[in-house]
Amino acid sequence: MRIVSLSEIKLRVSTAAAIAAVEEGFVAYSRGEVTVPPVGHLGFEQPPGDVHIKYGHRRGDDMFVVKIASGFYDNPKLGLPSSNGLMLVFSAQTGAPEAVLLDEGWLTDLRTAAAGAVAAKHLAPRDVGEIGIVGAGVQARWQLDLLRHVTSCRRAVVWARDFSKAHAFAVEGFEIEAVRTLEELAARARLIVTTTPSREALLRAEMIHPGTHITAVGADAPGKQELDPALFARAAVRAVDSRSQCLHHGDSAHALRAGLVRETDFAELGEIIAGTRPGRTDENQITIADLTGLAIQDIQVAKLAAAN
Amino acid sequence: MRIVSLSEIKLRVSTAAAIAAVEEGFVAYSRGEVTVPPVGHLGFEQPPGDVHIKYGHRRGDDMFVVKIASGFYDNPKLGLPSSNGLMLVFSAQTGAPEAVLLDEGWLTDLRTAAAGAVAAKHLAPRDVGEIGIVGAGVQARWQLDLLRHVTSCRRAVVWARDFSKAHAFAVEGFEIEAVRTLEELAARARLIVTTTPSREALLRAEMIHPGTHITAVGADAPGKQELDPALFARAAVRAVDSRSQCLHHGDSAHALRAGLVRETDFAELGEIIAGTRPGRTDENQITIADLTGLAIQDIQVAKLAAAN
Repeated sequence: MRIVSLSEIKLRVSTAAAIAAVEEGFVAYSRGEVTVPPVGHLGFEQPPGDVHIKYGHRRGDDMFVVKIASGFYDNPKLGLPSSNGLMLVFSAQTGAPEAVLLDEGWLTDLRTAAAGAVAAKHLAPRDVGEIGIVGAGVQARWQLDLLRHVTSCRRAVVWARDFSKAHAFAVEGFEIEAVRTLEELAARARLIVTTTPSREALLRAEMIHPGTHITAVGADAPGKQELDPALFARAAVRAVDSRSQCLHHGDSAHALRAGLVRETDFAELGEIIAGTRPGRTDENQITIADLTGLAIQDIQVAKLAAAN
Repeated sequence: MRIVSLSEIKLRVSTAAAIAAVEEGFVAYSRGEVTVPPVGHLGFEQPPGDVHIKYGHRRGDDMFVVKIASGFYDNPKLGLPSSNGLMLVFSAQTGAPEAVLLDEGWLTDLRTAAAGAVAAKHLAPRDVGEIGIVGAGVQARWQLDLLRHVTSCRRAVVWARDFSKAHAFAVEGFEIEAVRTLEELAARARLIVTTTPSREALLRAEMIHPGTHITAVGADAPGKQELDPALFARAAVRAVDSRSQCLHHGDSAHALRAGLVRETDFAELGEIIAGTRPGRTDENQITIADLTGLAIQDIQVAKLAAAN
């Protein structure tokens, strides 16, 4: 079995290739070509932690992937990042282990940001004015960084609950301004990405201007929320990575439960990419992409990292 | 992260230590000290295969374990064993990966046989006469091999559907005779281990003589069966590794569904070892141990293999 270190993974996997692989993966997922069992979970109390096991197989692939990702929330006290993890690649012909990717969570950050880039590519208006980033953490930087592949815009406004973090936010090649209110961010940006662990709506429906696209990546577990459910009623396109998953625990779930939209109002990104469901048809439409993260994204980037 | 090869694992883990570790693990499990989420499963059609993911954490342990085990049934055509797999050891303090145990399924064979030895230690009569082995595959050899740690008997009779396989069956240090009928095996052996993938009862209630202990390890998935449900009605002790698991898909499940026994008639091995439920109290009793395999067994042997 090959052991692939993080530095080697970074050499092997370009952000552009990851975006293309994730885009193609969404189409395969929506066509029903990916076997994705339920996510496994192991919880810890002392110290507090969560371990998630995501795994699956894309029909026709000669490998399958198991990802083990952990979050141990006291790690920063020890000077360690909260997140860690690895991916394992096995032969789908014999079951033999082929590679362990010691990515420390890097591939997860990458595939999550790649999904944001894919959503913006297919749903953002032609002229986004500025890019609005809600949250100033690791994934906020990743999202802005990868958007350079799908828009020529290099100006961003950033908002965070802690203004000093927004002020310190920097991504190479972007001119960035911290703003004190979400209203200002929403007034200036026609492409907004929300990346917070919020448990209540941050972006309210009345803040959002016509012609805005919003990608929400923070609500990746039950109880989390970033978007006002009323925003879904206003939107012309309500995209999700996975209907079944987003209607369980994404921002979409709140809108559905509030009775503001029906399940059939949601289109999967893979359907929009493949052209079987419409995307943006007018520059003045509001569009939303609610992303909760799929094993197919892990599979697609793991294949790039494990390629001979 | 450390990579531990199979040859290194074999040097680190003695069979005697594995039996003691599994015995102690059963007690911890029955005391509710082990977090064991549902087993994950990924199925394959071309070629046919099954992947199981077992994982868990024993309270107080500084590590947790994830096992990925595969069975690809066309492998023998390629000259490869059907089974493969590895175990991963992570810090329960930080989530960081610590070791990958490239055991190729060896630790699973070991921990399964260790459970058989533990069951025999606590339930077999003092004088077993001969040991009866039903099935002549890899696990049949493992079971007999480890029984040397818990009985002084070195004579065995073996039965297999294919007599030539029973005839070829050999384990160092044992005098072994192949028999053509299960009746003969049951007449000669007071300690019987069944290790087949049978889907119907092999040992019928009327075959079994008083004072016999039977350990059944084959029925590890729904649909499998080795023991006549009526045997459970005759037995004085009905032991299981896990009540919840055995009453779902062990031989015990068939007896329960037939209405011959109640759930409370089953004692967990961990309870018998700890003395909170009675084991054998008379040399003439019939006792049964139905083993389906628990993540705590994997955890216990993985700790031995990963120890510094």
